Amino acid sequence: MSSGLNEFWQPPAIAPLDQALAAAMRGRIDGKAKPSGSLGRIEDLAVQLGMIRHPEPPRGDKAVLLVFAADHGLTEEGVSQYPSAVTVAMVMTYLAGRASANAFAAASNVAIAVIDAGVAADLPAHPNLIAAKIRKGTANAAREPAMTPRQAADALARGFEITVDQIAAGADIIALGEMGIGNTASSALLAHRLAPAPLADCIGVGAGQDDKGMARKRAAIEKAAARSNATEPFDVLVQFGGLEIAMMAGAVLGAASQRRPVIIDGFISSAAALLAIRLYPAARDYCIFAHRSAEKGHDVLLAALHAKPLLDLGLRLGEGTGALLAVPLVRAAARLLTDVADLSDVLAGNI
Amino acid sequence: MSSGLNEFWQPPAIAPLDQALAAAMRGRIDGKAKPSGSLGRIEDLAVQLGMIRHPEPPRGDKAVLLVFAADHGLTEEGVSQYPSAVTVAMVMTYLAGRASANAFAAASNVAIAVIDAGVAADLPAHPNLIAAKIRKGTANAAREPAMTPRQAADALARGFEITVDQIAAGADIIALGEMGIGNTASSALLAHRLAPAPLADCIGVGAGQDDKGMARKRAAIEKAAARSNATEPFDVLVQFGGLEIAMMAGAVLGAASQRRPVIIDGFISSAAALLAIRLYPAARDYCIFAHRSAEKGHDVLLAALHAKPLLDLGLRLGEGTGALLAVPLVRAAARLLTDVADLSDVLAGNI
Repeated sequence: MSSGLNEFWQPPAIAPLDQALAAAMRGRIDGKAKPSGSLGRIEDLAVQLGMIRHPEPPRGDKAVLLVFAADHGLTEEGVSQYPSAVTVAMVMTYLAGRASANAFAAASNVAIAVIDAGVAADLPAHPNLIAAKIRKGTANAAREPAMTPRQAADALARGFEITVDQIAAGADIIALGEMGIGNTASSALLAHRLAPAPLADCIGVGAGQDDKGMARKRAAIEKAAARSNATEPFDVLVQFGGLEIAMMAGAVLGAASQRRPVIIDGFISSAAALLAIRLYPAARDYCIFAHRSAEKGHDVLLAALHAKPLLDLGLRLGEGTGALLAVPLVRAAARLLTDVADLSDVLAGNI
Repeated sequence: MSSGLNEFWQPPAIAPLDQALAAAMRGRIDGKAKPSGSLGRIEDLAVQLGMIRHPEPPRGDKAVLLVFAADHGLTEEGVSQYPSAVTVAMVMTYLAGRASANAFAAASNVAIAVIDAGVAADLPAHPNLIAAKIRKGTANAAREPAMTPRQAADALARGFEITVDQIAAGADIIALGEMGIGNTASSALLAHRLAPAPLADCIGVGAGQDDKGMARKRAAIEKAAARSNATEPFDVLVQFGGLEIAMMAGAVLGAASQRRPVIIDGFISSAAALLAIRLYPAARDYCIFAHRSAEKGHDVLLAALHAKPLLDLGLRLGEGTGALLAVPLVRAAARLLTDVADLSDVLAGNI
């Protein structure tokens, strides 16, 4: 529990799952018309979903991907080969339905909402855009705190509220994605301080960097790390950002507070999940880790999160693309509990 | 090419993919609005799909799971802890929409058709059941050939025709699944002779066997292997079965002949795919391998097929459950080619 955050914002209580339910869920699954254990990790997922929604049955039909977008002052240091303008361009692409996230969402029948958490430009109104800009990008974390504590708390709270609203509107599954030029640098700093792990193990190529670019990225991240020795989770967020990461952490807490599963995408989403869990450890029980990213540093986060992701497809795009591919697995797990007949009924001819 | 089969049946020509197209497909994907290579294996899948359907765009909306069901005379030897009656009971469960395959199909928005390839009982007519019974179960392969060459050819031809019909009715993606008590024993014999690989490496617990059951299963399979030294693919099918495996192999050839992707499920489906590919090697290009099964012997088949499956979730149920979980990945890959904007257009503001 972070005293720093609590001065500004406190989410409603997040209850851990009642582990006493696990055996009953496992028993129900073992009674289904299939060899015991034959659905492997889908069975584990069904146990988790059953516990999350107990005593209601788990549902997965209505899934929504929340794509949080923001810019990073660290880009001034050359941490990315792309300029911040690409963040805006990609937000417009999501809204036009022409990005990879849109394609994957269509493939998996998932709705998308895009959230302006802190894009460094004014964005036009759009029915699929949630305007939640805290500020136009973070400050340059190599020189000063990425944001104020007030801004960090506001970003967490807005992410929480947006997610609670989506659930109130019917969402069964929350999937998280992001877009923000420079955000692998910010996430590397969060991983370093929150896992914790050596900084070198947390820095990867992000959207792609040559050797010279990587040297620049490393130097900027080391400069930021040298500026602040923060280790307390809320302070780490304030120091290193980003706004989309804060809002995604709030979204994790929002989903957990409403007892809904939240699917974590790759490196940046996992940094946000770790932040949420370091603030409120019970939130871990509601997280589903979609995939092992090809971005260096994800393994550090997965280890800190005690997470074994469902997919390993060499993805490193972000946008929630990995989370979207995991949605059908979560839906299948929910339906294993709700739709599949018991073996006893099948053998007795009672179906 | 099997001379034995050709006496009875010859499918239309199956053309290998034009590998000269691969570079162009890769180039199109590299031009999309995302970092190069950042969608990992989904990009590889998109290249395959693009080549399969060229010059048409790949589509994935309409997917159908074909569940082929049949019984095995080898069950007389105690290869399974379940009696053949369970095959019928599970067919009725698919038709009632209450099996794991139905749940997963609903989760992934995939249609199901059940095919009676050789269930050892009369089945009532049902709109989702395709009556294609070749015979009521195979003969006991430990004592005599599982079927006649005529029956094997008929099963291949029927699987082919059923699949061509599904594609004519609009299917973009064919997914394969099966149900047949005793069919891991039959598949082990196919893997042994067609991979080829030592018999011991091909025998697993199937739907579940204790030590005594496993000893019985091994003895029965060894007895069958000792009865015939067949290695020619069509003869291996005739000797060891099964009817659902033959029909699935025909389905692979049917999908390939119509230039549609065919998603292979686990151990038994992979044995069928290997049979199809040993008969007509070009069929390999149209296969997508869904998952690594927990059934011992699948690794032998995957190695023989040069296949790296998409998922690794500890599944060993069959029914096409793994293939169903891979359908959204295939759809995402298709939409990567058709839906996602080019980076040049995004940066120029042309979307």
